[in-house]
Parts: sequence; structure tokens; C-alpha cells
Amino acid sequence: MDHTVLTRTALIEHWLGHRRLTRRTVEAFPEEDLYAHHAPGMRSFAEMVAELTTWTIPTIRGAIDRTWRWPAGTRRPAATKSALLEAFDEDTAELARLLESVPEARFAELDEPVPGRREAVIASLLYALDNEIHHRAQGFVYLRELGVDPPEFDQR
Amino acid sequence: MDHTVLTRTALIEHWLGHRRLTRRTVEAFPEEDLYAHHAPGMRSFAEMVAELTTWTIPTIRGAIDRTWRWPAGTRRPAATKSALLEAFDEDTAELARLLESVPEARFAELDEPVPGRREAVIASLLYALDNEIHHRAQGFVYLRELGVDPPEFDQR
Repeated sequence: MDHTVLTRTALIEHWLGHRRLTRRTVEAFPEEDLYAHHAPGMRSFAEMVAELTTWTIPTIRGAIDRTWRWPAGTRRPAATKSALLEAFDEDTAELARLLESVPEARFAELDEPVPGRREAVIASLLYALDNEIHHRAQGFVYLRELGVDPPEFDQR
Repeated sequence: MDHTVLTRTALIEHWLGHRRLTRRTVEAFPEEDLYAHHAPGMRSFAEMVAELTTWTIPTIRGAIDRTWRWPAGTRRPAATKSALLEAFDEDTAELARLLESVPEARFAELDEPVPGRREAVIASLLYALDNEIHHRAQGFVYLRELGVDPPEFDQR
């Protein structure tokens, strides 16, 4: 008999804490560097944030109704820091709302969000969250390289 | 009524997938750069891996029995890449073993792993996992800066 370790309420609370930290990371960037600075062969932090706001909601929608409708590619980031933050906030609000609508039985159900990747729906959702943690951490490196202190990792 | 989204078995499988990816990230580093390369004001990837192998197991032990016994500080990384990988593998095996021993009722229980941080035990465990994702992502930036392709994020 398997055991519950995470509930829906705790998942939403946990994810929203990460969203707040990601938002503070965007805020910490000087506007120009948000779009211009990048490591060799990597994207700017603005482009990484646009990745999050392109792919997270379609993941949750697929979790809800089994229709995996993926955009053709990552959208271009909004052109200013304030517009990027606004788009991010809208995405966060939709994320919280949609996570309430995933049927409980779906989380453990095997599905195939992209051809060849067969996994439980919770794994697809955690993939989207982990991707946020991953790219935000790269934003932390960029900030250090720019001489800016990143936000505290343990504050959510 | 709250809903289950993640079970113990799925958590362990998910974490071990991340451990495999972190291990491949260590392997991708040229040995000297593993210890020498770092962004300004940041640590080497070897030191970040030593952070993981210092703090993760004490977190799970505290989850099991409410005794939060923290080391005085992060241990120094093993002096060679192969020794670092060996220590990491031992840590991973213990992690998997200990996660089986956390009493089910503990995951949702409020506790105080460090003074002033009151949270559910699952939040403390996810903190340790998220910290691994966070630092590994910084290792990805280091690899790009060194001209080395990091492993695929979606392979676990």
C-alpha cells in the first residue's frame, strides 16, 4: 500500500512559493541585462521566463483533460520588464486556478504528454515546476555575473 | 477534502531520476574545472555537490524521527571526481533507503527543522530536492561556460 506524501493544496502552495521567488529574480535584473546577458550558448533570463509562460499552462491543461496541445515554439518574451512581470503574474494566477481542476485520479495516471515520454501525470506537472527551478537557478548565476545579489533561495 | 497528488513511491522514483541527472552533470565536468571553475561570488560545482551530500540525509533523518541534527557546516568535497561520485552514490543509496522509513503521518505534519522555519515535513524534503535541482542548473551554466554540453534535462 503506497502512502500519500503531497496533497493538492500543498503542491499549489509549494509551486506558488517558487513563483514568488522566480518573480523576485526577474525583479532583481537590471532591465537591459534581463534581455541581453547570457552564458555562451544559452538564452537570456527573459527568454527563459518566456519559456515558462509558454509551456506550463498547456501542461496543466493536458493534465486536466488529456489533450496535449503544445504551442509551435516558445513565445518571444514581452519587451519590457514590467510587461514580462505582468505576463508572468497572469500565468501564475491561471496556474493556481487550473491546478484546482485536475481530477484527483489523473495525478497517478500514465499518459504520454509528448510522443515517447510515457509517465504519470504528476511527473509531467513536476517537470514543469522543476524546469522553473532549473532556469531560475541559471538566472541566479547571471545575476552574480552582473554583480547583483540574487534573492534568498529559502524565502518563498 | 484534500487530494493525493504524489505518493511515496513516486517521490522516490522522481528524486532518484534527479540524482541520476546530477550524477551525469558531475561526470560531464573536466576534473580540474569541477573544482576550479565558478561564477563570481559563487562556489565550484564540486562544492555544491558536497552541499547536497552534507545536508540531504540529515533532512530525511529529521523527517523520520523529529531530531534535526545539522552538521556544523558543509563538508569539503572529496578531492577527486571519482571519489566525489562515490560519495554521491552512497548518499543516493541512503536517501532512497531512508525515504522508505518516513512515517506516512509525518509528511503533512508541521515541524521546525531550523528555528523560525515552521513548515510541513514534505516542504522540508522538497526543499532538499529543489536545492539539488537549483545547484545542478548552476552546474549546467558552468559547463556551457567551459564549452561542454550539459546532459539532457529531460533524461532521468
